Amino acid sequence: MGRDGLFVSFEGIDGSGKSTQARLLTEALRATGREVVLTREPGGSPGAEEIRRLLLTGGPDRWSPETEILLFTAARRDHLERTIRPALARGAVVITDRFADSTRVYQGAARADLRATVDRLHALMIGQDPDLTLVIDMDPRRALARGLARRSGEDRFEDMGLAFQERLRTGYAALAAEDPDRIRILDGDRPPEAIAREATALVLARLSD
Amino acid sequence: MGRDGLFVSFEGIDGSGKSTQARLLTEALRATGREVVLTREPGGSPGAEEIRRLLLTGGPDRWSPETEILLFTAARRDHLERTIRPALARGAVVITDRFADSTRVYQGAARADLRATVDRLHALMIGQDPDLTLVIDMDPRRALARGLARRSGEDRFEDMGLAFQERLRTGYAALAAEDPDRIRILDGDRPPEAIAREATALVLARLSD
Repeated sequence: MGRDGLFVSFEGIDGSGKSTQARLLTEALRATGREVVLTREPGGSPGAEEIRRLLLTGGPDRWSPETEILLFTAARRDHLERTIRPALARGAVVITDRFADSTRVYQGAARADLRATVDRLHALMIGQDPDLTLVIDMDPRRALARGLARRSGEDRFEDMGLAFQERLRTGYAALAAEDPDRIRILDGDRPPEAIAREATALVLARLSD
Repeated sequence: MGRDGLFVSFEGIDGSGKSTQARLLTEALRATGREVVLTREPGGSPGAEEIRRLLLTGGPDRWSPETEILLFTAARRDHLERTIRPALARGAVVITDRFADSTRVYQGAARADLRATVDRLHALMIGQDPDLTLVIDMDPRRALARGLARRSGEDRFEDMGLAFQERLRTGYAALAAEDPDRIRILDGDRPPEAIAREATALVLARLSD
């Protein structure tokens, strides 16, 4: 890692329960006395939250996929510099609800040729991935129902329907196969507490490495 | 060019009179019956104007240089897709007050090692430069006095002082030496009408090529 802290991300399709799991993991780790910074993307720093507003409001054609990738990357750079790296440097565990894998999977599911652009831009401007990524995997039908049940007004991505969510699920599975040491798939079709126990055990194992 | 229209940019240090020259050239070309689209960066399309607001307000440390480059590039991609390319495709002359050369020169003047990042990002996400770039060159002392005289509230860049403006002037000269066929230096220490006559003659020559 080359750092003192541990950088953990949650990923998954919309409505898969990532935010709940991020919160439960935060509580479990804080109960052990550790400093935990709970954050999210897009956003997670004052500047990135302003970019988030540009990304998540407005019609589906407000930005082209390429402009969108640039805005996500700008927000991620700010998030990394202002929130994530300072927390890791002081030894905290950083838990983020989404990071670069979301851009890889969402843009790749929208247009397969964009994946190479996303990867080059990541290498040039971000250059860092989490130490551990937990993908909450679940049936898109169940996840979609959940996602729509908590409409937030920031639903550009949640509006894309079942077929898109199925492409995302396949995308996450393919990404995990590319990088099995970093990315772990957790079965999301279980009670939240059961998923949280597995997630906490995985993180505690990394922390004791 | 591979297009029907002509893409012209004005560049120069703050207060050099670029905006005036862009307007005078627009009027001169419209007088010949041509369609001219006059635009500017950052901005020039509805989305890019919103990104402009993030870039040009707030304190000098609001964004790191790298985040700033990403935001400029996002705005430029939107400007190119929504305003510049459609206008060129229908045969218009596009005149923009600043384009990618501003990012090359301003970021390079702030931190020399950023120039390579700017170039890689441009190649990956923009991939297009103007057909003709006119740099209004003038003594930074004169330009700085002008720039400060028209404070707009969007003065993060204009506040950086004389030494910085001198580095910008040197940067533009170096860029013109790299690409002399595209970039022409115009002596800005002349009456605006004299500069405008030279600019118009250069553009009409390109249009008749």
